[in-house]
Amino acid sequence: MSFKDDPRLMVIGDRLRSVRNIVPIMSSKGGVGKTLVASLLALVSVENGLRTGLLDLDVTNPTTHIVLGIDPSKVKPIEEKGIIPPSIHGIRFMTIAYYSLENPVPLRGYEIDDVIREILAITQWGGLDILFIDTPPGLSDESLDVLTYFTNPRPLIVSTPSPLSIRSVERLLTLLVEQGINILGVVENMVVRVTGHIRDLCRRYGVKYLGQIPYDPGVDIAIGNIEDLRNTKFYKHLMESFNILRTMLI
Amino acid sequence: MSFKDDPRLMVIGDRLRSVRNIVPIMSSKGGVGKTLVASLLALVSVENGLRTGLLDLDVTNPTTHIVLGIDPSKVKPIEEKGIIPPSIHGIRFMTIAYYSLENPVPLRGYEIDDVIREILAITQWGGLDILFIDTPPGLSDESLDVLTYFTNPRPLIVSTPSPLSIRSVERLLTLLVEQGINILGVVENMVVRVTGHIRDLCRRYGVKYLGQIPYDPGVDIAIGNIEDLRNTKFYKHLMESFNILRTMLI
Repeated sequence: MSFKDDPRLMVIGDRLRSVRNIVPIMSSKGGVGKTLVASLLALVSVENGLRTGLLDLDVTNPTTHIVLGIDPSKVKPIEEKGIIPPSIHGIRFMTIAYYSLENPVPLRGYEIDDVIREILAITQWGGLDILFIDTPPGLSDESLDVLTYFTNPRPLIVSTPSPLSIRSVERLLTLLVEQGINILGVVENMVVRVTGHIRDLCRRYGVKYLGQIPYDPGVDIAIGNIEDLRNTKFYKHLMESFNILRTMLI
Repeated sequence: MSFKDDPRLMVIGDRLRSVRNIVPIMSSKGGVGKTLVASLLALVSVENGLRTGLLDLDVTNPTTHIVLGIDPSKVKPIEEKGIIPPSIHGIRFMTIAYYSLENPVPLRGYEIDDVIREILAITQWGGLDILFIDTPPGLSDESLDVLTYFTNPRPLIVSTPSPLSIRSVERLLTLLVEQGINILGVVENMVVRVTGHIRDLCRRYGVKYLGQIPYDPGVDIAIGNIEDLRNTKFYKHLMESFNILRTMLI
């Protein structure tokens, strides 16, 4: 579809003009910790004084609000020539869950694409240093939209040491490199024993290794409570990854 | 789209006529172990003397062949009035990876739907007692196709004790119950400490609890090696779930 067919596509660039860095958190495999990394990196980023946004693009199963302990029936964006996402824990936070609440959201791919265009066309982010985007697993409309509708997206890839995750990340890196996408790096999550496979993968694709996060069963219990989350080992390790990542920001 | 528009839709019923039980392995959240459960349940089922099939419908990121240690460049379906899936470890096994190999498979939702119609229309399963289907996370074309193109699919849901997984499974159960789908039950995977939340969820939705599988980091190391997989705690626990499940088969 060309930009002429859908006027919303012309607006998206305007809406994001004052967002300096767009960082989609990606992985074709599910359950590697994308949602936790996206949500907690946003908190770390605020703590570091950056103007930070978080967009949940997992539209058929949004969960960033659950991590951040937000009840979407009680918080709503302000409508004003589009919508202004509320600031929660210092993060400009946008999710379809404001509207779908905890109901199931079964959507065909073309409907997902439509929802994403709508969200991007109406959301007024204002000035942001960094916008983190939580994406769903797989390699379909959401991921393709991220690579299509944003100017210079710089994905941060999450992987676990599992062979299934490594093979999935390999396919994703192949695609991103082919498309000339500027990859920020790879975070290795849920490490039980150090193997070096992800480091090797990064070397092979010329991508930065952003550090490893040990497997931390304590995170699950902390979900929904910001103070508890800040006290996890997971959070401490993410702070180190953020320090590397920060030097690469525009 | 009506059946008249796509003649393949009329063939699908014929192709599956001699398949007694169709069991999609589902969960809206990724990384809960769907692929491992689908692949290893197929092995357990063969060991129990059932004529067993396995279909990988995670078309943008197929990984069942990696679990089962199959090199898709070396095994191929036989073409004969459609295609006959090869029998591997006693399982009739079908995956798009025979054709995509280890390349990335970025597909829009409508393309995924098209691939799934094609696979279902050309695959000759023959007589099967049970066909396990690995599905991707999310609630989009693959899951909707499973509920649309199969007659009487009986999903087996996988969840972990994580709050993110529980909330995702709740949404999925809501949808399946609304649609009048006959749910086989829920397997609780990656249990670190017993909480009872999934049991409560099952009770609330009137769905069978099929048992719990402790978190087993040994599974990752065994991936790709059938003998090692059969020696994991994961496999032993799945055998118990299978014994419950077996009494519910047609």
